[in-house]
Amino acid sequence: MQSLTKQCLSIIKTRPQESHKGTFGRTVLVGGNAQFGGAIMMSTEACVNAGSGLTTVVTDSKNHQALHARMPEAMTVDWQDKEVCDAVLASADVILMGPGLGEDEKSRELLTYVLQEQTEDQLLVIDGSAITLVAQNNEQLPYPKQTIFTPHQMEWQRLSGIKIADQTEEMNQAIQQKLEATIVLKSHRTEIYSNTGCFYNPLGNPGMATGGTGDTLAGIIAGFLAQFPHSVDTINAAVYLHSYIADQIAHDNYVVLPTKISQALPYWMKKFEI
Amino acid sequence: MQSLTKQCLSIIKTRPQESHKGTFGRTVLVGGNAQFGGAIMMSTEACVNAGSGLTTVVTDSKNHQALHARMPEAMTVDWQDKEVCDAVLASADVILMGPGLGEDEKSRELLTYVLQEQTEDQLLVIDGSAITLVAQNNEQLPYPKQTIFTPHQMEWQRLSGIKIADQTEEMNQAIQQKLEATIVLKSHRTEIYSNTGCFYNPLGNPGMATGGTGDTLAGIIAGFLAQFPHSVDTINAAVYLHSYIADQIAHDNYVVLPTKISQALPYWMKKFEI
Amino acid sequence: MQSLTKQCLSIIKTRPQESHKGTFGRTVLVGGNAQFGGAIMMSTEACVNAGSGLTTVVTDSKNHQALHARMPEAMTVDWQDKEVCDAVLASADVILMGPGLGEDEKSRELLTYVLQEQTEDQLLVIDGSAITLVAQNNEQLPYPKQTIFTPHQMEWQRLSGIKIADQTEEMNQAIQQKLEATIVLKSHRTEIYSNTGCFYNPLGNPGMATGGTGDTLAGIIAGFLAQFPHSVDTINAAVYLHSYIADQIAHDNYVVLPTKISQALPYWMKKFEI
Amino acid sequence: MQSLTKQCLSIIKTRPQESHKGTFGRTVLVGGNAQFGGAIMMSTEACVNAGSGLTTVVTDSKNHQALHARMPEAMTVDWQDKEVCDAVLASADVILMGPGLGEDEKSRELLTYVLQEQTEDQLLVIDGSAITLVAQNNEQLPYPKQTIFTPHQMEWQRLSGIKIADQTEEMNQAIQQKLEATIVLKSHRTEIYSNTGCFYNPLGNPGMATGGTGDTLAGIIAGFLAQFPHSVDTINAAVYLHSYIADQIAHDNYVVLPTKISQALPYWMKKFEI
Repeated sequence: MQSLTKQCLSIIKTRPQESHKGTFGRTVLVGGNAQFGGAIMMSTEACVNAGSGLTTVVTDSKNHQALHARMPEAMTVDWQDKEVCDAVLASADVILMGPGLGEDEKSRELLTYVLQEQTEDQLLVIDGSAITLVAQNNEQLPYPKQTIFTPHQMEWQRLSGIKIADQTEEMNQAIQQKLEATIVLKSHRTEIYSNTGCFYNPLGNPGMATGGTGDTLAGIIAGFLAQFPHSVDTINAAVYLHSYIADQIAHDNYVVLPTKISQALPYWMKKFEI
Repeated sequence: MQSLTKQCLSIIKTRPQESHKGTFGRTVLVGGNAQFGGAIMMSTEACVNAGSGLTTVVTDSKNHQALHARMPEAMTVDWQDKEVCDAVLASADVILMGPGLGEDEKSRELLTYVLQEQTEDQLLVIDGSAITLVAQNNEQLPYPKQTIFTPHQMEWQRLSGIKIADQTEEMNQAIQQKLEATIVLKSHRTEIYSNTGCFYNPLGNPGMATGGTGDTLAGIIAGFLAQFPHSVDTINAAVYLHSYIADQIAHDNYVVLPTKISQALPYWMKKFEI
Repeated sequence: MQSLTKQCLSIIKTRPQESHKGTFGRTVLVGGNAQFGGAIMMSTEACVNAGSGLTTVVTDSKNHQALHARMPEAMTVDWQDKEVCDAVLASADVILMGPGLGEDEKSRELLTYVLQEQTEDQLLVIDGSAITLVAQNNEQLPYPKQTIFTPHQMEWQRLSGIKIADQTEEMNQAIQQKLEATIVLKSHRTEIYSNTGCFYNPLGNPGMATGGTGDTLAGIIAGFLAQFPHSVDTINAAVYLHSYIADQIAHDNYVVLPTKISQALPYWMKKFEI
Repeated sequence: MQSLTKQCLSIIKTRPQESHKGTFGRTVLVGGNAQFGGAIMMSTEACVNAGSGLTTVVTDSKNHQALHARMPEAMTVDWQDKEVCDAVLASADVILMGPGLGEDEKSRELLTYVLQEQTEDQLLVIDGSAITLVAQNNEQLPYPKQTIFTPHQMEWQRLSGIKIADQTEEMNQAIQQKLEATIVLKSHRTEIYSNTGCFYNPLGNPGMATGGTGDTLAGIIAGFLAQFPHSVDTINAAVYLHSYIADQIAHDNYVVLPTKISQALPYWMKKFEI
């Protein structure tokens, strides 16, 4: 298992002069029920600040106004509006499914729907309660190699069947190879298991142990995949930068509010641009 | 009665490296009717910035969008949704009841409900109109030693029966000992009466005399109790730090907006971390 | 007509140590229909930052969430809820009526209602469309000496009957003496006509010529009257400080957004505190 | 085709001392359906910060609260409320039509309605989906010389019939002369085609390739036309300053959030004021 270093940020290349919104990808975020609207808002704030060309949020209509108030740069779609959802999902380069999705019947339906709609050109990041739903319903992934799971340890237990105490590198890797999906296993030292290698993130701090840190990471991963190569390198960079920025904030802050990480993304991406 | 000093902030310890959201507690805030939604928002902003691991707000659904727009880090629950409320309250380490709760029939029901749901492992902070409701209805506390009241002088009169003019240290202490709950008696020099001693806060300034200062203090107390020891020391630290930060802000500001205190919490907690 | 100088800010006294929210007054703002919600929000932002002890906004329920999202320090009341309105108005030290009120039937009703409710201890600031409504309906003021009108020149024409071209000091003063109310006549050099003298404000800049500047001034006047003496001196200080801050902002800004004036109030009030 | 230089900003003149809101124009923005509310919010934020005297937004009522929460300086009108829309449009100096308008039946109706209402004294900026609607329905412009289109290349293809690959200066100019309207053709180097000359903007950077950049430019154009001369010089200045500010932000930011451009307008307009 290889430790990530600053070197992994070298995927953040100077953007080509002749470019437009489409150059940097279309990201669709699906999540945010009536109770957990904040989660999808934090993912959105992360995704837009991470540089996704166009960001659309499929969420309960209850969340649209707060989303717009915080982040007018993102578009909103009512997840009841199947016709618009179809069109929006079809246009996506990357889909992030799960932040604040919940675990009820509607959530389940949405998960099944997104899995059906995913095409072979699209990446799918599965986060939060969507991971639990995949595990509970034993959902089959249409394109496992294009799928990224971002579980914390308990969600990984549900998905992999490995109890937290038994989540060793070997066990995790074995299940990853069966799943074929990429696994971003979040803990105080996050590990990435992929078809092309295993990595761990040496950064991070306990000020990040607050609600929304994971939603923010998921948003950065999605935003990075929208504009950078579809490889584990891009996921590694997202994981590393998320913690790197949090460590900078933690120099002066006992708690690291997730939205502060998002707001600092443009600055730090510029610093590391090559 | 012992004066608090900076020393009381020594409960703000460096967080353990191996930690996660659960390590720093689950706080549930109950309040915010249709008129007083701002109060629970200010408590929430304080609680999240104070470092509560997970913060959930049980409030009128009318307040959810403004809450998310200000503070996506907190989750929201409609207080009409009994099933979700049950689950959320059961998971709480600390419950804060009262900011913007109001005093109508619905408020009364909610208070009774929370008192019924409280378990022996949970702390309960009772603030604002919930104090008046306890007094009016002569509510019995299920776990008085785990209960903290945060009255201003008029609310304390209602709860203790002691008129403001007669609220001497001796009188207050006598009633506190009968109640067994901890009392944070707010005035321009806040006093804390507990089963293990009485304290007064030498800090604070008249710029704090504006709506929301108390709601913010209640949120800090709840957030501190979620992550620090369940003792009067933690309450003292919350009271002291709230005023300490307000005094810093007052150097340059005639009025101290409560939300500015909350926003400065991560910075000052880091400064005092030991 | 006397020119205001910095000297007029000397009403901003150091607050007494032993004080509480009530010490600095209760302000009730009435306005903000479905179209003009932003106006009452800007008045509220000004009033809270100006130091009103408690601020309550009586407005269309449509505006409550945006108000809370911007300014949780203020309480909200649905103007359809007569019972709560009654209680809130009865508790007021100062009432500000008009920002974003509109001119329809409901607005007219509200104006009549507020004029009926005003008590001899309360000041009433009448701004914006409420001035036009008073003029149109020839409303009788219950307590003219406790009433402050804040018209721009066209509104003053409607109220006074003096055409803009004829609004000389003498003409204005003559009508003011008939009305007995205080007149804050807004223009690029605002004039104040009162029972105890006439003043003009030498400050101000054309960057202030944008929607919301007047709503903000009205909020500062109300917030100042809530905590400082009920005299023209306090109104003069509000007018002067509003322009003084705007002039500071204009050093670096072509346009002076009204909300920036409000946000700078605590800082500049501290600077001028004596 | 002439390259724009800093010189083009010389239309930003020191404002006359004796002025009021009306001096700097009334801008009415029409757009923002249920899905694309963020677009019209970003145009509004740009327009107000650019110095429009009064800004009113005709939009789906769903968007009013988020608009007020971000920008209370703007007024809102429900686009279903024909009576108020009539009055508001009649009072406009400049109308901006299109950001987030959508392309459904309601959008089409609104476009037709606005084209009918436009008077010979009003400028009309047509942006986003409104351009597509004009093309699809072959709408006749009542006052082509007072109309400004702000298409990106695909929208220009729809409007002009020239395929992106064939959009040469000569072809574009030929169609512009037939249309008689001014064309702001957005790409990584925006070009302006007008009845009095063709210009291109040498500024801009790939960090601007994110959703909302065009909505922001449209808002600045509208706000500039409201207060500065009704000529292509004013449009040129808007285009140039939008990119100039974005280039400043890009020194320290990998992505340039459109709302940051808007927030920096008052500062940079002051710098360039002559």
